[in-house]
Amino acid sequence: MSTIAVDAMGGDRAPDEIVRGCVEAARRGHDVVLVGDEERLCALLERFDADLPVVASPQVIGMDEDPARAIREKRDASVSVAARLVADGAADGFVSAGSTGAALAAASFLIGRLPGVKRPAIASIFPTGKIVVDAGANLSVRAEHLVQFAVMGAAVSQVYHGIEHPRVGLLNIGEEPGKGRELEHDAFRLLESVAGIRFVGNVEGRDIAGDATEVIVTDGFTGNVLLKTAEGVARALYTMILEAVSGDEYQEALATLMPALLSLRARLDHENVGGAHLVGVSGVTVIAHGNSSRVAIANAVGMAADAVAKDLVGRVARGIEAVTGP
Amino acid sequence: MSTIAVDAMGGDRAPDEIVRGCVEAARRGHDVVLVGDEERLCALLERFDADLPVVASPQVIGMDEDPARAIREKRDASVSVAARLVADGAADGFVSAGSTGAALAAASFLIGRLPGVKRPAIASIFPTGKIVVDAGANLSVRAEHLVQFAVMGAAVSQVYHGIEHPRVGLLNIGEEPGKGRELEHDAFRLLESVAGIRFVGNVEGRDIAGDATEVIVTDGFTGNVLLKTAEGVARALYTMILEAVSGDEYQEALATLMPALLSLRARLDHENVGGAHLVGVSGVTVIAHGNSSRVAIANAVGMAADAVAKDLVGRVARGIEAVTGP
Repeated sequence: MSTIAVDAMGGDRAPDEIVRGCVEAARRGHDVVLVGDEERLCALLERFDADLPVVASPQVIGMDEDPARAIREKRDASVSVAARLVADGAADGFVSAGSTGAALAAASFLIGRLPGVKRPAIASIFPTGKIVVDAGANLSVRAEHLVQFAVMGAAVSQVYHGIEHPRVGLLNIGEEPGKGRELEHDAFRLLESVAGIRFVGNVEGRDIAGDATEVIVTDGFTGNVLLKTAEGVARALYTMILEAVSGDEYQEALATLMPALLSLRARLDHENVGGAHLVGVSGVTVIAHGNSSRVAIANAVGMAADAVAKDLVGRVARGIEAVTGP
Repeated sequence: MSTIAVDAMGGDRAPDEIVRGCVEAARRGHDVVLVGDEERLCALLERFDADLPVVASPQVIGMDEDPARAIREKRDASVSVAARLVADGAADGFVSAGSTGAALAAASFLIGRLPGVKRPAIASIFPTGKIVVDAGANLSVRAEHLVQFAVMGAAVSQVYHGIEHPRVGLLNIGEEPGKGRELEHDAFRLLESVAGIRFVGNVEGRDIAGDATEVIVTDGFTGNVLLKTAEGVARALYTMILEAVSGDEYQEALATLMPALLSLRARLDHENVGGAHLVGVSGVTVIAHGNSSRVAIANAVGMAADAVAKDLVGRVARGIEAVTGP
């Protein structure tokens, strides 16, 4: 069984909801270590009548700090201590809902990149099941980075979907080859030519739903816009629909449909996915939403444990070696 | 009253639906000139028992042709003839549902850019009323281009929303200043410093709905991804909701809600907006969806006539002059 370290001080609702999420994860059978302010965490555990191991870390990295500098200067920040537990082999993976940049820097500097990886990337699993790489770690990239993102996204799909040869699409502004910027032209040619990638060509923003592909690769700026747009529009449309049927004459009918609508909403809720994998580093690293609730944290721990059990890091390493040579 | 020339040969459903749309626009009181294959158009008009002026144009530009070359080589393509009617003053604006690149090239080469405009851009009006510039004309841009997009988007908002000082947001991956690529850093500083732009800072993909801004500026690649993602996700969610309540036990309740749901869908349908303005050129140019129906075409003609009546081109010209000097 794997041990997952959780940065208990990162996230909008830390440490309370993070601790509650870890308690829930432990209840589901996961082996969890809390990292953070020892006194506060022990008090919370006592309040929740739970007994989980705590590793003390007196420092916290704020959302407004420069991540790389903060990681260098605050050796005892909770996210750094959690990453170091993985680097030292005391934990098999770590989860953070704090600053994404800090988690990225902690994983890259303290755990380290896998051989051949040019840029670690964020592989975000959208509630529809689509995996988007990169979701925001690398705002400007070259075509060869997108090829590595394709390989790493496919490894996440193998673990998450259980598909051995997942499809990979290149996010573009049209389906026809030849669409897009120089980046997409170059990446299209490379992705077509690399053995071992099941490249299905260009895909569009709408393919975040539907059945065109499992993995969508793009630069981190566009990927982040794609994910936030999809999430925001789904939420806005849900609200507009409820407003459209807010009249008294609709209430009885709405009550009849509500169970089905709530079940759909739960299925599409990002809380039920739990987070994103940081791929390309030598240890399992799950980045949870900044506003993660206990449910999201418990799911993020489960996602990390699943990635350990199914050897996500080894799959990424072998995939990268296959496209770059040993 | 203004005269609007319509490229009757461009679009997936041309010329039938285009002609029907023009007949509908004329019925609504607009002055329309059809441009295209004279014989086919006259036959269609006779079939629809309508009498509209036709300007003959024997050539058509296909979706797969290189737009700039096609405009140079096919002087008598329908989109070129329509643009030339505007350039010559025989029409006040033109509409095309054909190749966006061809319409862009025809407008730029044949009608010409306004003084000081570095890059004409596509200002797309999303069904929520948000104006996105650029929606796909310029895939790679510099900060000074985004400032011009802000000015031109504001002019479209003045015409479309009737707001004299519309808000402008910069599409980014977070709201805090300092987020984004070098492009966004530079553009943020410029947009803050230019008098006459009501800059509200960074906005995110979700702001395509909601009340944060009227205008969203970004490069044409990201803008195109934003719009297609929003449209695709809204459509997918609508389908998922209908599937979720497809069981027999829900049909009576669904029938009760259907009028409200259909009215919301109609309000959010891109057909009811009609198209996008190509801004920065010396004549009103409306780019309609490739799959435009008669309703979309009639609305696009209305949109062009409205832009003529409210002097969109003059507003853009004065706005650009104010930020660049005469």
